[in-house]
Amino acid sequence: MGDNSFGTLFSFTSFGESHGPAIGCVVDGVPPRLNLSEADIQPYLDRRKPGQSRFVTQRQETDQVKILSGTFEGKTTGTPVMLLIENTDQRSKDYGAISESYRPGHADYTYDQKYGHRDYRGGGRSSARETAVRVAAGGIADLVLRQILGDKFSIQGSVVQIGPHEIDRDNFNAEQIDKNPFFSADADAVQKWKTYLDDVRKAGSSAGAVLEIVAQGIPSGLGQPLYGKLDAELAAAMMSINAAKGVEIGGGFALSAIDGAAAGDEMRLDDTGRPVFLSNYNGGVLGGISSGQDIVLRVAIKPTSSILTPRRSLNRAGEEVDVVTKGRHDPCVGIRGVPVAEAMMAVVLLDQVMRHQAQTSILPEQV
Amino acid sequence: MGDNSFGTLFSFTSFGESHGPAIGCVVDGVPPRLNLSEADIQPYLDRRKPGQSRFVTQRQETDQVKILSGTFEGKTTGTPVMLLIENTDQRSKDYGAISESYRPGHADYTYDQKYGHRDYRGGGRSSARETAVRVAAGGIADLVLRQILGDKFSIQGSVVQIGPHEIDRDNFNAEQIDKNPFFSADADAVQKWKTYLDDVRKAGSSAGAVLEIVAQGIPSGLGQPLYGKLDAELAAAMMSINAAKGVEIGGGFALSAIDGAAAGDEMRLDDTGRPVFLSNYNGGVLGGISSGQDIVLRVAIKPTSSILTPRRSLNRAGEEVDVVTKGRHDPCVGIRGVPVAEAMMAVVLLDQVMRHQAQTSILPEQV
Amino acid sequence: MGDNSFGTLFSFTSFGESHGPAIGCVVDGVPPRLNLSEADIQPYLDRRKPGQSRFVTQRQETDQVKILSGTFEGKTTGTPVMLLIENTDQRSKDYGAISESYRPGHADYTYDQKYGHRDYRGGGRSSARETAVRVAAGGIADLVLRQILGDKFSIQGSVVQIGPHEIDRDNFNAEQIDKNPFFSADADAVQKWKTYLDDVRKAGSSAGAVLEIVAQGIPSGLGQPLYGKLDAELAAAMMSINAAKGVEIGGGFALSAIDGAAAGDEMRLDDTGRPVFLSNYNGGVLGGISSGQDIVLRVAIKPTSSILTPRRSLNRAGEEVDVVTKGRHDPCVGIRGVPVAEAMMAVVLLDQVMRHQAQTSILPEQV
Amino acid sequence: MGDNSFGTLFSFTSFGESHGPAIGCVVDGVPPRLNLSEADIQPYLDRRKPGQSRFVTQRQETDQVKILSGTFEGKTTGTPVMLLIENTDQRSKDYGAISESYRPGHADYTYDQKYGHRDYRGGGRSSARETAVRVAAGGIADLVLRQILGDKFSIQGSVVQIGPHEIDRDNFNAEQIDKNPFFSADADAVQKWKTYLDDVRKAGSSAGAVLEIVAQGIPSGLGQPLYGKLDAELAAAMMSINAAKGVEIGGGFALSAIDGAAAGDEMRLDDTGRPVFLSNYNGGVLGGISSGQDIVLRVAIKPTSSILTPRRSLNRAGEEVDVVTKGRHDPCVGIRGVPVAEAMMAVVLLDQVMRHQAQTSILPEQV
Repeated sequence: MGDNSFGTLFSFTSFGESHGPAIGCVVDGVPPRLNLSEADIQPYLDRRKPGQSRFVTQRQETDQVKILSGTFEGKTTGTPVMLLIENTDQRSKDYGAISESYRPGHADYTYDQKYGHRDYRGGGRSSARETAVRVAAGGIADLVLRQILGDKFSIQGSVVQIGPHEIDRDNFNAEQIDKNPFFSADADAVQKWKTYLDDVRKAGSSAGAVLEIVAQGIPSGLGQPLYGKLDAELAAAMMSINAAKGVEIGGGFALSAIDGAAAGDEMRLDDTGRPVFLSNYNGGVLGGISSGQDIVLRVAIKPTSSILTPRRSLNRAGEEVDVVTKGRHDPCVGIRGVPVAEAMMAVVLLDQVMRHQAQTSILPEQV
Repeated sequence: MGDNSFGTLFSFTSFGESHGPAIGCVVDGVPPRLNLSEADIQPYLDRRKPGQSRFVTQRQETDQVKILSGTFEGKTTGTPVMLLIENTDQRSKDYGAISESYRPGHADYTYDQKYGHRDYRGGGRSSARETAVRVAAGGIADLVLRQILGDKFSIQGSVVQIGPHEIDRDNFNAEQIDKNPFFSADADAVQKWKTYLDDVRKAGSSAGAVLEIVAQGIPSGLGQPLYGKLDAELAAAMMSINAAKGVEIGGGFALSAIDGAAAGDEMRLDDTGRPVFLSNYNGGVLGGISSGQDIVLRVAIKPTSSILTPRRSLNRAGEEVDVVTKGRHDPCVGIRGVPVAEAMMAVVLLDQVMRHQAQTSILPEQV
Repeated sequence: MGDNSFGTLFSFTSFGESHGPAIGCVVDGVPPRLNLSEADIQPYLDRRKPGQSRFVTQRQETDQVKILSGTFEGKTTGTPVMLLIENTDQRSKDYGAISESYRPGHADYTYDQKYGHRDYRGGGRSSARETAVRVAAGGIADLVLRQILGDKFSIQGSVVQIGPHEIDRDNFNAEQIDKNPFFSADADAVQKWKTYLDDVRKAGSSAGAVLEIVAQGIPSGLGQPLYGKLDAELAAAMMSINAAKGVEIGGGFALSAIDGAAAGDEMRLDDTGRPVFLSNYNGGVLGGISSGQDIVLRVAIKPTSSILTPRRSLNRAGEEVDVVTKGRHDPCVGIRGVPVAEAMMAVVLLDQVMRHQAQTSILPEQV
Repeated sequence: MGDNSFGTLFSFTSFGESHGPAIGCVVDGVPPRLNLSEADIQPYLDRRKPGQSRFVTQRQETDQVKILSGTFEGKTTGTPVMLLIENTDQRSKDYGAISESYRPGHADYTYDQKYGHRDYRGGGRSSARETAVRVAAGGIADLVLRQILGDKFSIQGSVVQIGPHEIDRDNFNAEQIDKNPFFSADADAVQKWKTYLDDVRKAGSSAGAVLEIVAQGIPSGLGQPLYGKLDAELAAAMMSINAAKGVEIGGGFALSAIDGAAAGDEMRLDDTGRPVFLSNYNGGVLGGISSGQDIVLRVAIKPTSSILTPRRSLNRAGEEVDVVTKGRHDPCVGIRGVPVAEAMMAVVLLDQVMRHQAQTSILPEQV
C-alpha cells in the first residue's frame, strides 16, 4: 500500500496538489449496488467549501466532484470509484518569495528536507486543499453506513473551542450546528468567536480550535485488537488531518486526573431490558472495540500558520529571512476541519464494519 | 496484514493471552548483521517488569525473553526474529465471578459482543500483559536506531502527571527519571504522587496518568505524507496501548488556545550556521515530517479499571450484578506504560527511517 | 505487513530456521468459536511428515504442533493463533563445508549476497522444513472452509508427473492418492516412478515433479479484480513454495496452443436447471473470479538440488570449489510438496471468502 | 490496501472501465527528483497502442497519458503521480445482446455472480483496455530502474509462441523484436504466425500465445523470502494480466522432467574473476532472491475469447443462448501483452529494489 492510501478494505488513495490541475482519489472496496451519483457526494463537499463566510478563506473553489469510474447506471459496480475535483482557482501569481522561503509552522522546510524538491505553489501537496478529497471519499463511506446502520446512525462534528473560548456544554444543541458559520452547537459561543476571530485577524494572526466528532448508532463489536483498535485508527485518521496536534477519546486527557472509581462507565439495564452505560468516559470504545455507546472524540487544531505578522525564518539558501504570508487564508483552519474529521471517521467506521463482518460472520454457527 | 501486526517495513506480529502458556511476537524486517542476543533485549523488559515497587502490580513475572529464530552466531540474519516470553505466574484460581461478569472499564463486554467467546482469565488478550511483547520488539528497534543515529539519539519517556498532580516543569531533570518508581523527571513530584497513590489505593480506587515521550537526535525528513504521517502513526501507536485515551504532539490541545503569531516555531541559524527553531510547539513534526527538533508527545492513560470498589455491571446472562475486581493490579497502570510508549515510538521511528531510505536514497543523484 | 506474512484478512506470519529451536507461525483473522485443538491440526502435518517411505527424506521430525494462543476451552477466540513446531532432529554435525561453499541450485549464494550473513545449518530459513508451518496454517484454513462450504468442499492435491513420467489421465482415481507414497491418483504410475526414483538416487541425482491441486465445491464470486485476482494470488502462493518454478491454471500453457473456438468453456443448464460449464479450460477462474467450477492448478517443482554428484561452485572467499551435498534429502522434493500446495490453496481461498464477504454482503439489499 | 493496488513501496492504484470517461492510476512511492514528463511515459504506451497492424484490434485509442499530480518543474516531487488516459473511442452502440448474455471465456458471468451488477460495455473493468494503465505505471518504474541500474539494465519481452508455433531458439535475435508486428525475436516465425493468424481469424476464431520476458542487469539480492519472493511476486504480477493462464521461471515446467544433476546452475569464475553461472535453469532467482543472472520468465496467454464463432452460453435470466462476439478484437491478445508484461516486471523489480534497500543498507556497517 502506498503512503497516500488510507483504509484496509474500504480504502482511498489520494493525489493532487493545491495548484495542480486537479486533486482526487480512487476509492476501493465500495460495496456494489449502492445508488451513487455525483449529486450524492456533492453535499458533503459543499459543507467544506471555502468562501461561505468571512471566517474562512475567500478562495473561490467550486469543488465540483466528478465520478470517472466504478458506477454504472447510477449504481456502484464494486470496482474502484475515481473521484476527481478540478482546481479552478489557480490565480497566476508570483511565488518568488514563498518559493524560496520557509513559512514557519508549514511543511515547506520539512518537504524540502525530505524530498529536496517541492511544489511550493499554495503549499502543494501539504495544502489543506487536499482535505476536499477526504470529504468526498468520506461521503461515500457515510452513504454506505446509512444503508447499513439505518436512521439511528449519524456522524456529527462541531467546533467546541476557538482560541481560548470553549462552548458552554449546557447550551449544546446539535440542531444549531449547521445554522452558524462555525459549526457551533452553542449559539451563545458564536458572537464570542466572531469577536475573537475578527480581533486575531486584525492583529495579523490566527486562531486554533478544538473539534468534537460524535458518531451515534454504532453497533458494539467494531474494532480489531490489538493494533487495529477502533480508537487507534481514529487517532491516526484525525492526526493525519492538516494542523491537527492532538486527539482524545471520551474523557481523554481529563480522565487522567480523576480516579478509577469515578471513571468506570458502569452498566445497568434500561426499561426495556437492554444494556445501558451510566456514563461515557471511554467514548464508546473499550479495549479498542466499540461498546454500542456514542463514539466521542476531540481533535486539537493549531492556529493557521499563514499569517500577516512577519516571522523569522530561513530560505532555501540557508539564509535568515523574515516571512509574511499573504493570501486568502482561513483565519481559523479548524472550522472547515469539521466535515473533514467527520469524513475520516466515516471511512474508519465503514472499514471496521467490513473487517468485523469478514471475520465474525462467516462460520455457519456465527450467523 | 493481520490486525495483530504493527509496522510496514519494520513490523511485529503479536500473539498471546495473559494466562496462556506464552506471549510473544515475530519481528520482521530486522536489518541483517545486527549484534543481537537475549541479553540485549532483556534490559528493556526489566524496566517494565512488575513487582518493582508497591505502586505497581505485585505479580511475579520474570519476563524472560527467548529468541527462537532470526539470529545466528550472535547476529541477525535478516529473517524474522521470534521473541517468546513464557507466562510463569499463572496462579490457579477460581475465575467464576470474572468469567461471567463484565468488569466496568475493561474489554470484557466488548470482546464478548464482538467474538461471542473470550478467554476471561486475567483479561486474556486485552490484558496489559501483552505490552511486554511491544517492549521486546521496541527494544530491537531501539538497538537498530542507536546504530543508525548514533549517540545523539535517545527515546526517553517519563510520567508528567498522576491523578490531578502534574510535575513542575522547572524541576524537569531527565537524569531523575530512572531514580524513582514513577519514571518522574521531577524529584519533588515523587512524594506527592506516593501520597496520592496510597490514598486512592486505600480508598479501593486507582489513578490515571499522563506520559511524555521525547525522542532526541531524530533527523529531519522522516514521515510519509499524507496518510503515513509521522505524527499520525505515532498517534495510532500510542492509542493502541492499553488504557490510552488521548495523544498530543508538541503543544497539543494547549496549542488550540493560543494564536498563530505565538505558535509558529520561527527559525534562525545557530552560532555554527545550522538551522534552529526558536520554539517547539509542533513537537518536531511539520506536515507529518520530522523537522529535526525533538519529537515530543504526551499520552493520557485512564485510571486502572480493576478496583476494589464495587461497581454496577451486567453478567453474560444479561443480569444486573455488582463487580469487585480483586487481584494484584497496578494502582496506576500509566507508570509501567512508560517503557511501552517508548517501545512503540522506537518501532514507528525505525519503520519510518526504512521507508524514507527506500524512497529517497535510491536514485544516483539523490545520494 | 512483513515479508514473512501471507494473506490479507486470514493471514499467517512465519518464522524459524531448519536447525533453530523451533519453527512456527502466528495465524491472524481466524474466525471465533471454531472448534480447534492440536489434534485437529496434527493430521495435516502428518501427511507431510518426513520418513514415511524411502522416497522422501529420512529425517525424523515428529512435527508436533502446539497451540500457544488464540483458543480457550477448545474454541478459537478470534485472537491470533500461535502454532509452534519444535525442531527435534538437529543432529550435531560439522557444517564446515556447507558453511563456506554455495550449494548449486540452493539459496546459499543469494542469501549471502542479500544479507551478508546466513544461518547455513540445513539451509536455515530457506530450508523446505519451513513448509511445515504452511501446512499447519493451511490446516486451520481448511477446517474453517469445511464449516463454511460443507461436504462438497475439498482441496485435493496429487503428483501428476515425476521426472519425465506423467500419469495416464484415463487412470485418474482420486481415491488412490493416499494409498501410495507418491500422492499418485494413477496406481499404474507408482511402479514407474519407483523405478525412476531409485535410478536417479543411485546415480547420485534427484527428480523433479508436477503437482496438481484441485479445489471442489468452491462458490462463484471469489477473487478480487484486478490485482487481488484469485488466480494471481494462487500463483504467488504456489511460487512461494520451495523449488517451485512454474504455475498454471486450467489449460495453462497448453491453452496457448489451441484456438479460441476450442477453448471457451461454453455454458448450458443441467437437468436441474443450474448453470454448467461444458469444459474447464479456465480452471475455475474467469477474470480473476471463481466461476463455481473446480479450481485446477498445476505447479512445477524442480529436482532436489541436494545431490551426491559433485558440482562446480564457489565458496564465500570467492574461490572455485566442488560441492557434494550429503545428508538425508528428499530424492524428489515435489512429493512432500502436495500437502504444502494444498495448504497454500486453503489459505488463499479462505482469505478470499472473507474479503468477498466483507465487500458484497454488508448492504441490506445485498443479503 | 485496496485490491486495485499493486506493489508495496512503489505501488500503483488503478481505476477505470473500458467505456467510461477515463482510465488511469495513482503511482505512489515514486522517488523524488526524477525527470518526468508525459513525453517520457508516452513511448511505453505507444508500444501497446491498438491499430498498429491487422493482427491487433483496430480500435483507435490514442492512449495519450496526462500527469495530473506529483511533478513540478519537470521533476517528481515524491508525492503521488496521477496518470490519466481518457477514453476517446467510445462508439455509441447497442449493447443489448452483450448486456444480457455471458460471453464464454470472459468475466461477464463471474462479475455478475460476484457483484450482481456490472458495466457490460466492452467488458467494463475486466477489459484488456485497463492494461494501458499498467504500461504507464511500469514506464515510470522502468525510468527509475534505468537511473539506478544503468546501461546494462533492460527489460525486454517477446512473443515466443503463437498458437502451436514456437520460435526457433537458434534464430533468437533481440534486435528483431521491434521490427515486426508480433514482438518476435525470430524473423522466420513472423510469416508462419501471419498465416496462422489469418487462418484462425477467417475461421472466426483466435489464437493463444506464450510471452517471454527477460530482465538483464539485475543485481543479486533482490527478493524478500519467504512470502515476498521475487519469483512469487512476478508470478502474481503476470497472472494478474488479462487472459494469462500460466507463468514459469527459468526452466519452468520443463525443469520438472530433468534430473537434479542436469539442473543445478553450477558456478565458476569468469576471466575477470567474477562469479558466473554455467546455466540458467533457475531463471535468475534462487530461493526467491535474484542471483545476478538474467531474470527469465514466460507467460501463457489464452486465445482471445471474443470470437465470431457462435458459442453456447446463458443470459442473465438464466436461459440458454448462443453468443457471437462482434467488434474490433485482437485476434491474438497475447501480442499486445508484451509491453504489459514488461511493465509489470518493471514495477515488481523497482518495488523489490526499494524494499531491499530499506532493510539492508541502513546499518552503518552494512553500507
